[in-house]
Amino acid sequence: MRLRAKGIEKLSPRELRLRIRRGEWAKPTAGLAMGYAQANVVILPYRYAFDFFLFCHRNPKPCPVLEVLAPGQYEIDSFASGADIRTDVPRYNVFRHGDLKDTRKDIQELWQDDFVTFFLGCSFTFEEALIKTHIPVRHIEEGKNVPMYITNIPCRDGGIFRGPLIVTMRPIPLEKVTRAVQITARYPFVHGSPVHIGSPEKIGIKDLSGPDFGEAVKVKQGETPVFWACGVTPQAALLNAKPDICITHTPGHMFVSDMLNEELATS
Amino acid sequence: MRLRAKGIEKLSPRELRLRIRRGEWAKPTAGLAMGYAQANVVILPYRYAFDFFLFCHRNPKPCPVLEVLAPGQYEIDSFASGADIRTDVPRYNVFRHGDLKDTRKDIQELWQDDFVTFFLGCSFTFEEALIKTHIPVRHIEEGKNVPMYITNIPCRDGGIFRGPLIVTMRPIPLEKVTRAVQITARYPFVHGSPVHIGSPEKIGIKDLSGPDFGEAVKVKQGETPVFWACGVTPQAALLNAKPDICITHTPGHMFVSDMLNEELATS
Repeated sequence: MRLRAKGIEKLSPRELRLRIRRGEWAKPTAGLAMGYAQANVVILPYRYAFDFFLFCHRNPKPCPVLEVLAPGQYEIDSFASGADIRTDVPRYNVFRHGDLKDTRKDIQELWQDDFVTFFLGCSFTFEEALIKTHIPVRHIEEGKNVPMYITNIPCRDGGIFRGPLIVTMRPIPLEKVTRAVQITARYPFVHGSPVHIGSPEKIGIKDLSGPDFGEAVKVKQGETPVFWACGVTPQAALLNAKPDICITHTPGHMFVSDMLNEELATS
Repeated sequence: MRLRAKGIEKLSPRELRLRIRRGEWAKPTAGLAMGYAQANVVILPYRYAFDFFLFCHRNPKPCPVLEVLAPGQYEIDSFASGADIRTDVPRYNVFRHGDLKDTRKDIQELWQDDFVTFFLGCSFTFEEALIKTHIPVRHIEEGKNVPMYITNIPCRDGGIFRGPLIVTMRPIPLEKVTRAVQITARYPFVHGSPVHIGSPEKIGIKDLSGPDFGEAVKVKQGETPVFWACGVTPQAALLNAKPDICITHTPGHMFVSDMLNEELATS
């Protein structure tokens, strides 16, 4: 069997999704299907969908919308051929009234005809681009989850959805900061250019060693902390809004698309 | 009175909107508040708003969404300080079930609590950028409305909204085509880079001298026709969908924002 013999990291996005659909891969997707865009997933009943769309559109850096499915649509005909959103994410989080109630490998039994699925860009894409140009990505070097911080910058409200901007931090050597801005600016659909460079206290971050989510990483001599908008921002807004049901991917367990990272570059 | 003495073309966006609000300007806005972004306006009841948002998101070149107001919101707090969407467009078209029923200078009497307003980018922004770099814009030179053509390229469906891509054509000197691509690519929120260069018949256009909307312009020796996605595309999709009510700006009578064209550039 070709699929069994082949290493998981060598599978194409389609092969990987099929393996996930069969329940054979329920772990994080970092490092898999390299070169292809992975996406955050948010599934909501139709009555919340316009507000969430508005929240994302008004906050494009933390919430870059890659694709939206029509109400009730679970088969994907666009950026992930043959995919089924009910089965093709390795692990789902199920929230009810803002509380995490369940984590599961498929959501076929929970599917509702009025569910609307949003796919949001993920920073894996620009991290690959940074590494390819010899810009270090510290949390990958240290084998950690990226450090994330709640800022004092409010997002623009979108109906019932509101909350602060949450950022990730990557320490960048001073002489490479400009290049890091240029590279990530090429990818507006995966958080784009930094939202802040250099002074954590100006955006309400008191202690870099105590991130609100993820793990702290070392900032070396000659490096400056650079902050990018983070995909946890919409999740926090979702939890604040407390919709009666909402399903997301489990963090790190992303939806893997057929779209090349380079197809997301603007220039 | 300063406002009376000042030429209309010299007014700031805010001053111009106030004059429009008082009913003193109900003509086209081309050439006014130069340097500032003007926008297409689409106003729909909430029940159609998600589908229209989806249609725009899936067709970003013809339908670049600059801003969306919350349901019922008519005062604008974001990109046009102090503006009121019920009064600050020079002229409105009112469609019922897909038919143009009325043209008026304000819509205060028609306003509904469930109206959602979309602002879409307008090619005036990139035409200014082309002219500034000595790339000719023929219909402006000839004092005409831009020629527009219905193509054989279908838009992606967004719920009830569907239809063909409609394009504008500008003849560009062969040696300036690359530069025209580069310049317009900087402005993805106002239709961005061309959708086609050089072969009208490949996109279903049989006769350049017979545009579907607007007026034909001369294509000179040594020029190639270059096609950009057009803001009439969403209007056509709206007419196909026949919502019971829909209000747009009257073509050419745009909403003038406080946003600089350069604020819309990505690089």
